[in-house]
Amino acid sequence: MALEPIVNSITGISFLTSSFQFSSQPILATAKNPEDGAMVLAGVLLSLVIVYIASKLGGELSKLVDLPPVLGELVGGVLVGVSAFHLLVFPESGAEASDSALMTILQFIGNLSPDSVTSIFETQSEVVSVLAELGVIILLFEIGLESDLRELQKVGYQAAIVAVVGVAAPFGAGTAGLMLWFNVPVIPAIFAGAALTATSIGITSKVLSELGHLKSKEGQIIVGAAVIDDVLGIIVLAVVASLAKTGEVNVLNVIYLIISATVFLLGAILLGKFFNKTFVTIADKLQTRGKLVIPAFTFAFLMAFLANVIQLEAILGAFAAGLVLDETDKRKELDKQVIPIADILVPIFFVTVGAKADLAVLNPAVPENREGLIIAVFLIVVAIIGKIITGWTVFGQPQINRLAIGVGMIPRGEVGLVFAGIGSASGVLSKPLEAAIIIMVILTTFLAPPFLRFAFQGEPMDSTELVDSEERVEV
Amino acid sequence: MALEPIVNSITGISFLTSSFQFSSQPILATAKNPEDGAMVLAGVLLSLVIVYIASKLGGELSKLVDLPPVLGELVGGVLVGVSAFHLLVFPESGAEASDSALMTILQFIGNLSPDSVTSIFETQSEVVSVLAELGVIILLFEIGLESDLRELQKVGYQAAIVAVVGVAAPFGAGTAGLMLWFNVPVIPAIFAGAALTATSIGITSKVLSELGHLKSKEGQIIVGAAVIDDVLGIIVLAVVASLAKTGEVNVLNVIYLIISATVFLLGAILLGKFFNKTFVTIADKLQTRGKLVIPAFTFAFLMAFLANVIQLEAILGAFAAGLVLDETDKRKELDKQVIPIADILVPIFFVTVGAKADLAVLNPAVPENREGLIIAVFLIVVAIIGKIITGWTVFGQPQINRLAIGVGMIPRGEVGLVFAGIGSASGVLSKPLEAAIIIMVILTTFLAPPFLRFAFQGEPMDSTELVDSEERVEV
Repeated sequence: MALEPIVNSITGISFLTSSFQFSSQPILATAKNPEDGAMVLAGVLLSLVIVYIASKLGGELSKLVDLPPVLGELVGGVLVGVSAFHLLVFPESGAEASDSALMTILQFIGNLSPDSVTSIFETQSEVVSVLAELGVIILLFEIGLESDLRELQKVGYQAAIVAVVGVAAPFGAGTAGLMLWFNVPVIPAIFAGAALTATSIGITSKVLSELGHLKSKEGQIIVGAAVIDDVLGIIVLAVVASLAKTGEVNVLNVIYLIISATVFLLGAILLGKFFNKTFVTIADKLQTRGKLVIPAFTFAFLMAFLANVIQLEAILGAFAAGLVLDETDKRKELDKQVIPIADILVPIFFVTVGAKADLAVLNPAVPENREGLIIAVFLIVVAIIGKIITGWTVFGQPQINRLAIGVGMIPRGEVGLVFAGIGSASGVLSKPLEAAIIIMVILTTFLAPPFLRFAFQGEPMDSTELVDSEERVEV
Repeated sequence: MALEPIVNSITGISFLTSSFQFSSQPILATAKNPEDGAMVLAGVLLSLVIVYIASKLGGELSKLVDLPPVLGELVGGVLVGVSAFHLLVFPESGAEASDSALMTILQFIGNLSPDSVTSIFETQSEVVSVLAELGVIILLFEIGLESDLRELQKVGYQAAIVAVVGVAAPFGAGTAGLMLWFNVPVIPAIFAGAALTATSIGITSKVLSELGHLKSKEGQIIVGAAVIDDVLGIIVLAVVASLAKTGEVNVLNVIYLIISATVFLLGAILLGKFFNKTFVTIADKLQTRGKLVIPAFTFAFLMAFLANVIQLEAILGAFAAGLVLDETDKRKELDKQVIPIADILVPIFFVTVGAKADLAVLNPAVPENREGLIIAVFLIVVAIIGKIITGWTVFGQPQINRLAIGVGMIPRGEVGLVFAGIGSASGVLSKPLEAAIIIMVILTTFLAPPFLRFAFQGEPMDSTELVDSEERVEV
């Protein structure tokens, strides 16, 4: 890798190569220490206990004051995360094992060496991150099961327009405003503008389902638009990332992404009509435990894998899988069985999102935060207005709740953070601009649930919302 | 930090310290490469798809020929694992990324560098291993929920005698036989004898539940004895591991283990009677999704964590948690909701056990295997007879199926492999002896399900066995 040319160019010096061998040794050795394996499991178990307590405390308190529970789960995550108690911190934010209160506990209990601590910290963080990703994959699978393909097709054109306007408006206004009013150079301005585009489909669909509006016409337009704008966001990311890296746009890659995304989503739905029957036949033939959930999750994980390897997001594959299986007559039984699985995995995602959000960038007492905060105010205004206007692009639906549609597109969530991360890694973004993007993502994510609740006030709820899982299982 | 003294002793040479910084670069860089994160997720998703297909193919075929499905899941694991198709291999068996067909697929798709491949392989293997451990933790939690604490207490003495005889007999006969007939020195002979002691509670309880005999008197004696002999096995392991390392027994550690195991199991049950009511109160007060499973899994994972950190096995904590929650009136509802969660996580454990079993040691065409095979025949005979006789130690139960109890204790599973692993790492075991232990573990594990089925032939089944999960969820 990056090292090889350096080593190769100086191979004449035996000192150097031998010291390289020494230094790579301890990492391999600690990774294979069998006792570390037990501590990784202990770390994951304790992380899950913390995640569950934070999610239930936050979710229940949120419910008590009549806000969507997912907001409380995010806040619970903030409390246990890098901004407050440091119980759940992750290496990708630059945290080390010594910053993690959980690792301090494990080190005390297990009397671990510093090397072991570092390797255990990295491995258990990776495991918790993958569990969180499985959580959002299962959430989107469940949302797909709850969504009706025919309803989605009916609102397809409207969702597409909402998505395109909701990507173009904040991108254009954000980039132009940063260049004109804040004198930001063109490439970072385009990058920050691009970070304003993609809606967080996970957060918005969870809030919709908690409010009982997932199956309303507004809910279906929001979910459809969020899926489309996630795809658009990935394409925008590919464009700006190659701009940032080489100063040019890799046209071939962009064409590849557009074609593969279209083929994948349409192909999944077309093939799905055929696979439907196969799925029911398989589930009917199986006789051992898990005869319904195992084929369903095999399909969902396979679709998530395929979406992932063609450079789309895994959650899009899981959503498509859910849509396809929703069309079968096993649907009700499957719905019921997915609920407890989602109940134990989805909170890991939301608490982790909260735990990774570093609210320190919001502190105005730190002088370097101030410039970021001023830019952030501008980005947030653009982020909110740029999405709210999309509600008024919906045509032919005079009775529709336009405000709710626009508000539903507001949360930016994880995709915005990916932009900030790549921008920071490639050196395109200045510190204040990066902080401003993070603040924008945090605030749009945290504001969307109460805003959405307000926008839907007084509207009738779906008859079969997801909220009361236990009752539905008991039926 | 094996490196630090070396670097410190030569800090005068600026070349070396700078080369150290260079050389540690790629490892950190690849670990934090955001694109690698997506490939780790892709690897885990593909692993899960492979696990599910293998478990269902194996389980269903097993069911067709009227054998317990778990046997088929193990065989399915062997097929995708290190012995056959190499789709699922693990670094701890010495495999490298290039031995993994799955990594070859990912490398081809993602066009990865060799460094990335190694780091992705290690991380995704670790994630799948932790998922498998969560699977067996949830299996034991479910078994605890299915077991009746009062029934277990009734058979407590009998289970204790079965456990003690089932540990002492194979240990004594195995150690003596190896020394007398095979001229094995005393320490390796003790080590191999110790590997014959602990029953695999996961495999035996799963088979019992599949056969519908978990709640029979025989089933409860087997589960109780398997729990006790797991604790005994851990104590034996501590003794022989310190023997192997220092040639002496660390008496303090042994006393610590005996006390902590007793305090933990009795304390869990006593505290459980108090916690029962708290649990029901909490579950009744909660209003958001997962109001039953989240408190239940928080408790189960916390108990598993505690068992793990006091050097017992995590599964014992989960089993105790299940026993405690079985006493509440939320039990039936909880049972139903745990089923789909177990259905998607438990197969990961069994397929992984199969995938990690290297059947190459069984090949008599390789000359070095022959000595191991001959020793293995002896170990298997001792392993089977040493457990079967335990059935005849049960007193005051003239009607009991003594053969079934003895046969139920046969599978050795993961604990035996831990012995082989530690013995091999500390250099105590010769290659043939290590291979013989692995063969013994594989064969007792694979033979127990059909043997147990035979031993229970003609007996009436429990009224509420676990087999038909879907039907119970529908009730």
